[in-house]
Amino acid sequence: MDDLAALIRDVPDFPKPGIVFKDITTLLRDPEGLRRTIDHFADHCREHHLTAVVGVESRGFIFGAALADRLGVGFVPVRKPGKLPAETLSESYELEYGTDSLEIHRDALTTGDRVVIIDDLLATGGTLQATVKLVRALGAEVAEVLCLIELAFLNGRAKLTDVPLHTVIVVDGE
Amino acid sequence: MDDLAALIRDVPDFPKPGIVFKDITTLLRDPEGLRRTIDHFADHCREHHLTAVVGVESRGFIFGAALADRLGVGFVPVRKPGKLPAETLSESYELEYGTDSLEIHRDALTTGDRVVIIDDLLATGGTLQATVKLVRALGAEVAEVLCLIELAFLNGRAKLTDVPLHTVIVVDGE
Repeated sequence: MDDLAALIRDVPDFPKPGIVFKDITTLLRDPEGLRRTIDHFADHCREHHLTAVVGVESRGFIFGAALADRLGVGFVPVRKPGKLPAETLSESYELEYGTDSLEIHRDALTTGDRVVIIDDLLATGGTLQATVKLVRALGAEVAEVLCLIELAFLNGRAKLTDVPLHTVIVVDGE
Repeated sequence: MDDLAALIRDVPDFPKPGIVFKDITTLLRDPEGLRRTIDHFADHCREHHLTAVVGVESRGFIFGAALADRLGVGFVPVRKPGKLPAETLSESYELEYGTDSLEIHRDALTTGDRVVIIDDLLATGGTLQATVKLVRALGAEVAEVLCLIELAFLNGRAKLTDVPLHTVIVVDGE
């Protein structure tokens, strides 16, 4: 997927010195870039026979909602604490310093649901691991975890060994 | 659009006592609800001849990305401060107590671009007014502002008198 990789912008020293941020807004802004990204995910998911797409706040909402619309299934947002108004299930995960958590509505999924979880970036894997736990805690099946970009040098894949994982653009170097 | 309105859940006392929160996650979760919402916005925009869709963080990302994908145009996120990595333009707006601000990438739009701005909810209108200013400051034209829900009793429409505004579900009572 070199054509999609070429549409991602490297922004040095963001969010802090020494980090090269992978900026997907240049891909999203490009009509062909957006279309081909969603084409790719939709083609990839066609055989999964999903009942919903789960997107992780907030860039996962972008790909997740468009993918759900393409596949003709519902969309489920997984959000930061305090954003979802009804009864939620919460799962915490470790950050570099401290912890954070994610929430899902308790009635968003149930036994018999089969979903993909989508986000823009696989970094350390903490948010995606927490999201897998939330979906499974509701009794639903995770057919696959999808990410546009994988920062392979952070080895987030190691946190997701018990679930199928598909990433489109793999960044090896730091 | 009574069929869509019926898919929105009222959550009392969120985010604080006395407020009835309009929860769109039940609409998003419903395959028909999501599809018909995007159908509606896409049909509505067909004659606008857009070059991009602008979505406001973060529920505006959900409708905005799916709409951009349907229309075959690019997607531009307007985000809370500090989230966009490249050079940004910023616009502040008033909250009940204090101010907040929104940002757009300076190279996201330019003269000749023609966009719709989309969000889930029109409340007091501050975030949408700020977004209109950001888009126009980059030289682009706002064909229309789109919201799924309008809380008419908050009179946000009064802040958007200089731009076409289309809302789908109007909530009159408090």
